[in-house]
Amino acid sequence: MAFINSNISPDWLDGLLVGRQDQPEDTIIEIELPDGSDTVLVGDGSLPVMAGPCTLETREQVLETAMAVKHAGAAFFRGGAFKSRTSPYDFSGLRAEGLELLSEVRRVLNMPVVSEIVNAAHLPLFEDVDIIQVGERNMRNAELLTELSHIDKPILLKRSHSATLKELLLSAEYLLAGGNRQVILCERGIRTFEPMTRNTMDISAIPLLKELTHLPVIADPSHATGLPQLIKPMSMAAAVAGADGLMIEVHTCPDEALCDGGQALVPEEFTELMAKLQGITDFR
Amino acid sequence: MAFINSNISPDWLDGLLVGRQDQPEDTIIEIELPDGSDTVLVGDGSLPVMAGPCTLETREQVLETAMAVKHAGAAFFRGGAFKSRTSPYDFSGLRAEGLELLSEVRRVLNMPVVSEIVNAAHLPLFEDVDIIQVGERNMRNAELLTELSHIDKPILLKRSHSATLKELLLSAEYLLAGGNRQVILCERGIRTFEPMTRNTMDISAIPLLKELTHLPVIADPSHATGLPQLIKPMSMAAAVAGADGLMIEVHTCPDEALCDGGQALVPEEFTELMAKLQGITDFR
Amino acid sequence: MAFINSNISPDWLDGLLVGRQDQPEDTIIEIELPDGSDTVLVGDGSLPVMAGPCTLETREQVLETAMAVKHAGAAFFRGGAFKSRTSPYDFSGLRAEGLELLSEVRRVLNMPVVSEIVNAAHLPLFEDVDIIQVGERNMRNAELLTELSHIDKPILLKRSHSATLKELLLSAEYLLAGGNRQVILCERGIRTFEPMTRNTMDISAIPLLKELTHLPVIADPSHATGLPQLIKPMSMAAAVAGADGLMIEVHTCPDEALCDGGQALVPEEFTELMAKLQGITDFR
Amino acid sequence: MAFINSNISPDWLDGLLVGRQDQPEDTIIEIELPDGSDTVLVGDGSLPVMAGPCTLETREQVLETAMAVKHAGAAFFRGGAFKSRTSPYDFSGLRAEGLELLSEVRRVLNMPVVSEIVNAAHLPLFEDVDIIQVGERNMRNAELLTELSHIDKPILLKRSHSATLKELLLSAEYLLAGGNRQVILCERGIRTFEPMTRNTMDISAIPLLKELTHLPVIADPSHATGLPQLIKPMSMAAAVAGADGLMIEVHTCPDEALCDGGQALVPEEFTELMAKLQGITDFR
Repeated sequence: MAFINSNISPDWLDGLLVGRQDQPEDTIIEIELPDGSDTVLVGDGSLPVMAGPCTLETREQVLETAMAVKHAGAAFFRGGAFKSRTSPYDFSGLRAEGLELLSEVRRVLNMPVVSEIVNAAHLPLFEDVDIIQVGERNMRNAELLTELSHIDKPILLKRSHSATLKELLLSAEYLLAGGNRQVILCERGIRTFEPMTRNTMDISAIPLLKELTHLPVIADPSHATGLPQLIKPMSMAAAVAGADGLMIEVHTCPDEALCDGGQALVPEEFTELMAKLQGITDFR
Repeated sequence: MAFINSNISPDWLDGLLVGRQDQPEDTIIEIELPDGSDTVLVGDGSLPVMAGPCTLETREQVLETAMAVKHAGAAFFRGGAFKSRTSPYDFSGLRAEGLELLSEVRRVLNMPVVSEIVNAAHLPLFEDVDIIQVGERNMRNAELLTELSHIDKPILLKRSHSATLKELLLSAEYLLAGGNRQVILCERGIRTFEPMTRNTMDISAIPLLKELTHLPVIADPSHATGLPQLIKPMSMAAAVAGADGLMIEVHTCPDEALCDGGQALVPEEFTELMAKLQGITDFR
Repeated sequence: MAFINSNISPDWLDGLLVGRQDQPEDTIIEIELPDGSDTVLVGDGSLPVMAGPCTLETREQVLETAMAVKHAGAAFFRGGAFKSRTSPYDFSGLRAEGLELLSEVRRVLNMPVVSEIVNAAHLPLFEDVDIIQVGERNMRNAELLTELSHIDKPILLKRSHSATLKELLLSAEYLLAGGNRQVILCERGIRTFEPMTRNTMDISAIPLLKELTHLPVIADPSHATGLPQLIKPMSMAAAVAGADGLMIEVHTCPDEALCDGGQALVPEEFTELMAKLQGITDFR
Repeated sequence: MAFINSNISPDWLDGLLVGRQDQPEDTIIEIELPDGSDTVLVGDGSLPVMAGPCTLETREQVLETAMAVKHAGAAFFRGGAFKSRTSPYDFSGLRAEGLELLSEVRRVLNMPVVSEIVNAAHLPLFEDVDIIQVGERNMRNAELLTELSHIDKPILLKRSHSATLKELLLSAEYLLAGGNRQVILCERGIRTFEPMTRNTMDISAIPLLKELTHLPVIADPSHATGLPQLIKPMSMAAAVAGADGLMIEVHTCPDEALCDGGQALVPEEFTELMAKLQGITDFR
């Protein structure tokens, strides 16, 4: 796990809680199923998939999609209730109502859920959320990270599209330093000069992060590429490169999505992808 | 193969010879073995590997490495005789003498060879080179591309570290427009703000290029990452993402390499990688 | 003011409050002097300078620096009380105590002050702050912007180091849409591949923003370059390119600064710079 | 001129001919007027302007533009005869015929001329060219640089849109190492994520290069921004930041230009710009 033959010497990692120097063995995060019958593990060598729409829209959409992704084998349902948008005039989510829909999915389908927080003041609403996501826009929001460092729930920390790996790890350090060691990192593409993809997915970040830190690292090819036809190859690529999980956008009707529909898979495509992923972890 | 659900409409591809509109079926490039007993195919769904040192240094190094990579299953031996370097004081290669060493490898091991050209005036020396490489520095050298468009040899065109996919395809178009349709594209990393890797390997470029063009697309994880420990995961990632081949740097003694040694695999690591790649193409 | 001969057509600007379509004439922001005797204008064609340390450290440092920059002609004293830092172990500011020091400067020197907010919950502490700064890390913090859109104080909105001009303007739109039209934009460098400067200062953003929006645009060469010897030429460059003001880091003892000292001017250098700026606005 | 207070230590500059360690005083390049009556200096503190069309098109266009820019005060006429284009189907210049038109301008107007070379084999055609330009695409073409290092003519070396300052200086070192010390560097914009400008003009590169090297540094706001309305402010900015000259695209009829017309000034605008530049060098 050391940087053999490497010309990078990450001195800045010395003494950090996120580093393998502090904890050589992998962090494995356990998420209990809602009915308490079992747990899902992230970071144990398996490849759990978090799937669902970018943004929760209607009860019908949410339940239909959740059933479809559960049937296809997704471990988690993900869906945004609070959205941070570039324009003040874009749809910013169903908010509290969205989290209630997630609660319902969670209970009815016995499926843990993942949702993004944009303001620490909303924390009381996230009681039924199993993994709280910090979006890439908030990766550098030290105030929010500090608040989340004091809670007892796994945090999914997305790499900002302009963050170096060092900066991502220092943001994670805010969480660990405050006492929350249940942190999952997520590569979701960085901003480059290439215009054909929404971002450039930095697949090499996955094995490099796994070398630098004991925290699990998952990948989000939907936001990274913005192109549905790239989700399968990039999911496969992330998996063989060592990802501890995938986050995939699934929408029953991408063309009508209120946010980022263009990049979502329909349930049939998602089912195909899940089948294709069978056995892929043997190759890493 | 169409851009289903996609919000990019590559109008600039209309009418280009590199586009799938002009030729829907994949270009398959045949390279005859030196003894004429068989051919190696690039673009037929297989995963041929080009391996060898970045720079040819001594007869002993060249033969030892070539035997090792052939034994491990490499289809091509690659090695630089003419090197384009950032500083005028860096070693610029054995030049003609290097190409003679390649000739010897080719004949003795019955192995086709790949080497980079930096000046069209050197073309007469490349008679025994099976695939002529245009390095990333020369991807935009229209004069060189035009000269190479008139010859009857496959060209391996590396994406400049600052080129968009559109620009890469327009550079390839120079070759096809001049009459040379045997072109292999190569992703080898783009320049971004991340300092831990030499470049950021754009794995998504592979499936995207395969959608846009009929030309084969290979990947070079050695130059893309600059870190030997990333070569295996990134090779696997490129393979499942659809790469038609890999170019891997192998050096018998990386610490003594005159150029880019830090990023090379030793033969034992390369042998391991080749074993790991067995069966990977079933996953795409 | 139109995009004559231009190949960019900013359709996304249509209907936005930040656009010149909505308000052709420049927004001029008036800040009253603490004693009410006069006002300072931003956006009227003059070049007010905001100067002071990146981070407020001690009462002595603050008063000494404030007197020096006032004497040299600075219109505003700036200093950070709440700092958002990359690492949780870096000094995060004197917080409330820092704002009290600013209050003292403001009252004693009759000088309006500028300071950064990182959390809307701190707003009550900012009563004596004349211009509230949103740092580049929070440019995309929609929650914070929404809170600040409801207050009656000028906001200095810094461009994120990875934000396009469109994204900067949409962040400003959050403020205007919520009712706060006193917004000053600030260019402070973008993240590129060049390692010699901390960021790359995008001087062209200044005239381009001035064309797109009626809001004043200032420039911060200290954070943009990270090199004290570049502050003078880049201040001059920003001024002739149309900047409505400058934000300059000044520290009485840069080597002992707790944050970013390396890029600060000492008071003597600042005085020289202020002299050099005399008459520069005639050249735009 | 030293890196006072600076956290960058350019060790790589040690021993290079381009460095100020080797030659502390500025290199001043003398170009004789065609009739031998006088010389134009580059690097002496003045601000000579090179103006003309990106691409030479017709005799009428060339003469009309040359007269206009000479009348406005341009020191050099620039125009491309050989163009390196992204697509093989774009107009690649009048070639030898273009250079003959330049010769005519040179003789008739007694005005030194600047033109780009793309292939060392064309050198015999450049006898009447006073400054030979290496375009940004060829900045890393070591073969071309080596050939140009052996001639006795000033070389204008443009920074590649993806080159660091270190790489630019190492490319210049190729010229000096081969014996040609008459080298002028040119900043013309780097590739970033911002889409509104063609490139991002790195104004800070100008004072930084002036600190690192004794070679003159000029700036090309036309290619850097791609927007005619930005040429004036960016010319002013480059000038106050220390540029030793400017290269400005002027076209009598930008809308009909065969290449890059959209970014050119018409002669009237150029005349205005030249007037505005009067006295600007006093501010640096």
